[in-house]
Amino acid sequence: MARAIDEAARRAARARQRVLLKPLGSLGRLEDLAVWLAGITGDAEPEVRALVVVAAADHGVAAEGVSAYPQAVTAQMLDAFLGGGAAISVLARGVGAELRLVDAGVATRGGADPRIVRTGLAPSANLVREPALEPAALATALATGRRIAREAAAAGITVLVGGDMGIANTTPATCLAAWLTGRDPHELCGRGTGIDDAGLARKRTTVARALTLHGPHMTGPEEALRRVGGGELAVLCGLALGAADHGLACICDGLIATAAVAVADAIEPAVGPRLLAGHRSPEPAHGALLAHLGLEPVLDLGMRLGEASGATVALAILELACALHAQMDTFADARVAGCEP
Amino acid sequence: MARAIDEAARRAARARQRVLLKPLGSLGRLEDLAVWLAGITGDAEPEVRALVVVAAADHGVAAEGVSAYPQAVTAQMLDAFLGGGAAISVLARGVGAELRLVDAGVATRGGADPRIVRTGLAPSANLVREPALEPAALATALATGRRIAREAAAAGITVLVGGDMGIANTTPATCLAAWLTGRDPHELCGRGTGIDDAGLARKRTTVARALTLHGPHMTGPEEALRRVGGGELAVLCGLALGAADHGLACICDGLIATAAVAVADAIEPAVGPRLLAGHRSPEPAHGALLAHLGLEPVLDLGMRLGEASGATVALAILELACALHAQMDTFADARVAGCEP
Repeated sequence: MARAIDEAARRAARARQRVLLKPLGSLGRLEDLAVWLAGITGDAEPEVRALVVVAAADHGVAAEGVSAYPQAVTAQMLDAFLGGGAAISVLARGVGAELRLVDAGVATRGGADPRIVRTGLAPSANLVREPALEPAALATALATGRRIAREAAAAGITVLVGGDMGIANTTPATCLAAWLTGRDPHELCGRGTGIDDAGLARKRTTVARALTLHGPHMTGPEEALRRVGGGELAVLCGLALGAADHGLACICDGLIATAAVAVADAIEPAVGPRLLAGHRSPEPAHGALLAHLGLEPVLDLGMRLGEASGATVALAILELACALHAQMDTFADARVAGCEP
Repeated sequence: MARAIDEAARRAARARQRVLLKPLGSLGRLEDLAVWLAGITGDAEPEVRALVVVAAADHGVAAEGVSAYPQAVTAQMLDAFLGGGAAISVLARGVGAELRLVDAGVATRGGADPRIVRTGLAPSANLVREPALEPAALATALATGRRIAREAAAAGITVLVGGDMGIANTTPATCLAAWLTGRDPHELCGRGTGIDDAGLARKRTTVARALTLHGPHMTGPEEALRRVGGGELAVLCGLALGAADHGLACICDGLIATAAVAVADAIEPAVGPRLLAGHRSPEPAHGALLAHLGLEPVLDLGMRLGEASGATVALAILELACALHAQMDTFADARVAGCEP
């Protein structure tokens, strides 16, 4: 059962912005961000306590030659996240956010690490041949995301940041973007981590084949996610659904994370008002999804790494927006003359 | 004597970006920011140690009715900066930067406060009647900015952030923008802190009168700054010149701070490569100055407060960029497979 936006907290936050020590509107988007988080949390002076969730999975579709990197990199990156030297490790430390990792079907990982949330999922199947996920796997992945959101809310988290790791996963995400937006899949395909022209051609063919195979059976967003999605996409979709369940904000990262929350929004319209687009990536399918969701990104820095990296940089902006909202004096506090009538 | 950009440090930083644990270019502008600061500081793994300098002054041109706020606000805001509840006080704390205040000719301040750098300057004169600054006042203000940069460099600061406070100061800044860019001053006038249509009409008339009066005598950038600038503009110009003298980076804020650094760039071409545009404000003259300087802002959040606020938010991004650059593993460190040939 999704929570509604708290309009009273929103109005109280907007009223506070009107008396803070600055011309009204002069902090631009920063004012809106604080008011937005007030409505989501029900707190007129909301605090940013953030959890960054990076879900990782492998994809059978990597066999089609749609990525510049070998599949082993997914597992190696999960180790790097734990080691503290991956981009998201540095960024999460930099903004003071906790980092949670989810194994949503990584192919080649060895021993269990207690710092990683396990789903027991196998790698997602090759979507040009069969559905990416069995029905039970989809349910497990969605439930894992929702559970992480529930536990986060219980621990006092107010903002979830979802990110992905998965070699070849711009291919399923582009399939989902094409299905959700109705846009031409050929135009939505981008270079992901940096494939060459031949790789891009293979990716376009792969996306087209997947949509031809599964299109007639994709009767709703969950079935689309099952057929042309993947493990990390489903966990991140569940995370956004959980944000709506428990009154949390959710910052979208790039193409994969945004495809996942767009599926969540199609399942549950209460997700939409809780979303903040952290940044705009150069992947064409990302721009199409942002337009579809009606989201204006906070940042446009040409980032295209995934791992929740762009969303976590945007989190730094949200933190400053809420610090201003909570800590600034009012005109009355500071005994400063107001605007002339 | 301006310092050159350190091309060896720049190349070393670019080479490091090529081996960090991410597809090359996938951190977008964040990669460029770290490489840029390496060239300026001569350190291939540059650290952000920032000083935010807010220069405040009053302006005789306020008598022409070009601002929505009374002149007393300049002095009141200086007190609010010290009190910790102004926007820039909150932002500087939020990003861990030191805040330095300069009285560059505030009209109504009472007792001396040791936390404020004094210049002894009187308020800037009404530029529709006479030059804003006497020659000696211009020299004092420029020298103050340069001295702050010199002392900052000696104290280990690597990044200067300049900001302004001064009721009516978008009027002199717009005069300077028109002179520097050759653009139609009528189109460059914006609403500043929020003047109404009548105020905007007065501002346009005022800018036109000032340019008519002083135009024939503005034989170079320093003389333009003296005639249609003001105390805080001259201090911030000196600060940017000092950044070039001492090998520091300089982040531009909105219209006033950017007009000041644009004058500095016109005086000393070595200033340009040290500039980072923190954000884009909605003031039309700001966009004209950014285009003139060839700068692409980091942020576009509709901020128009001054006080170095936009530049200080951008500083948070620069800090994350340099943390990534310094703290990320390389592919070799993390034993992750590279891109397939």
